[in-house]
Amino acid sequence: MSEVKKRLSTAISRFDLQDFLTARTQAVNRALDKFLPSEKTKPATIHRAMRYSLFAGGKRMRPALCLAAAQACGGRAADALPLACAVECIHTYSLIHDDLPAMDNDDFRRGKPTNHKVFGDGIAVLAGDALLTQAFEIAAQAKGWPRYSHRDLILEIAKASGSLQLVAGQVADLEGEGKQISANELRYIHERKTSALLCCSVRLGGMSANCTPVQLRALTDFGYHVGLAFQVIDDILDVTQTSEQLGKTAGKDTAAQKATYPAIVGLEKSRKIAEQLTAKAFAALKAFKGRAVALEALAEFLLKRDR
Amino acid sequence: MSEVKKRLSTAISRFDLQDFLTARTQAVNRALDKFLPSEKTKPATIHRAMRYSLFAGGKRMRPALCLAAAQACGGRAADALPLACAVECIHTYSLIHDDLPAMDNDDFRRGKPTNHKVFGDGIAVLAGDALLTQAFEIAAQAKGWPRYSHRDLILEIAKASGSLQLVAGQVADLEGEGKQISANELRYIHERKTSALLCCSVRLGGMSANCTPVQLRALTDFGYHVGLAFQVIDDILDVTQTSEQLGKTAGKDTAAQKATYPAIVGLEKSRKIAEQLTAKAFAALKAFKGRAVALEALAEFLLKRDR
Repeated sequence: MSEVKKRLSTAISRFDLQDFLTARTQAVNRALDKFLPSEKTKPATIHRAMRYSLFAGGKRMRPALCLAAAQACGGRAADALPLACAVECIHTYSLIHDDLPAMDNDDFRRGKPTNHKVFGDGIAVLAGDALLTQAFEIAAQAKGWPRYSHRDLILEIAKASGSLQLVAGQVADLEGEGKQISANELRYIHERKTSALLCCSVRLGGMSANCTPVQLRALTDFGYHVGLAFQVIDDILDVTQTSEQLGKTAGKDTAAQKATYPAIVGLEKSRKIAEQLTAKAFAALKAFKGRAVALEALAEFLLKRDR
Repeated sequence: MSEVKKRLSTAISRFDLQDFLTARTQAVNRALDKFLPSEKTKPATIHRAMRYSLFAGGKRMRPALCLAAAQACGGRAADALPLACAVECIHTYSLIHDDLPAMDNDDFRRGKPTNHKVFGDGIAVLAGDALLTQAFEIAAQAKGWPRYSHRDLILEIAKASGSLQLVAGQVADLEGEGKQISANELRYIHERKTSALLCCSVRLGGMSANCTPVQLRALTDFGYHVGLAFQVIDDILDVTQTSEQLGKTAGKDTAAQKATYPAIVGLEKSRKIAEQLTAKAFAALKAFKGRAVALEALAEFLLKRDR
């Protein structure tokens, strides 16, 4: 049994992830419902469109990571909650815009028609814009901490979401379609498309617990590697699962001639890479001396997921 | 001679608006150039696209209003500059997204092909997203003041740009096409599509000067009315000027069957409304006892402009 697998099963035995996820998802959903204008608020269309995608059954992995990081640093979930909601708004906006005909042109997401399929392209663009803006409005309502001011929180989110990170990943992904790209270039895309916001999520969780610089570095290291592992697994699932299993169009990376880990290094090597990345994420958690059980269980869950 | 016109000519005689605008535009352009990643920064496409629209020769009216408001409150231009740049990024993002085929489907803006005409729809969506995100990154780099923290600044921008204001205006505008709407409904659209961000610009300028609550209320009143006047005039110019004069497609409101003031109340009455709104804006400036010359001159300039 490898060192990784041993740690994984230890994490399983001592922590009920399902309980954690259920409780945290409910808290996040309640908070998002409170932060967002109701469906009846004028103009109703935009609030229906924003809520349609925000409450479409997403796994809330980023909020969960944020809240788990807060816990690892001894913080309170209530303090991390606005930041957890903010990153979920960013994530949802990026999915709405990615799915547009001008981008990935996807008809299904989480087993439902995509935003633009229901509300039209114009409203989908605006719903994404509004959710991105909402993220900053929500984050500004966080408490602020001795080591981390609102300035730090806003910069953290803006940098992770901006033209050098999340948007850069989308651009490189869009431009890489149909091209032969190297494993390095693919890593560049994954770091930005996925790792940046996952990393931001755990860092914000730490910040909400007024974490030490050492803890913040450990969370950064953890988030970076979990993010990369997450995207490698996404690539793997795209070729191994059906659309029904995924709740979104399967095989679309291949159809769009997108570079993926399975395409470049093969399926088996991809699985190994995902496991190695997860191992590195686990190693980063040593700094928490066993207090990061929720983060460990989440990382394991992300590695083993089948959708 | 009406009271408005008298105030206008007084403003003219004592203030060189062209000097003010030239100096402020240069300062804003230099600052934006410093805040944004260079055109060579990877991924180059997105930074070229962001800069293409940001430096397409916009009038920089929102930054000018922000800086003029700071001056009226005894503040320093350097302190207001990041906030002036932030609102210009928001304004530019909203133009890029508005021009998309999914929205207004416009080919020209400021005499140049629109962003999506040059870079394609996908990159144009992302360039807008990146500029919106950049706005918050820039605003977070402002100083922060005793009366107004970073939290206040971010909330100010997020609320003015979000689903209840700027985005709401776009949605109502989009949904109003081809429909018979009332003057009240049109006012609702103008308040959100234009007034919200203009109002935010002058309020941020005041905040950067650590203005008093009384001054902030006066600026809010001024910004609201100047914003409405600005949009009424935009509607008028759309039917009275040629595309060459405007640098964008003229007559497109009529072509798109959009409700406008000239369409609802006629051209002459529209002109009167614009003048009345400007008079109300002027009245709000009384609170500054003559120190708001730059704001007065700008309001006059906006009323008399022909493009």
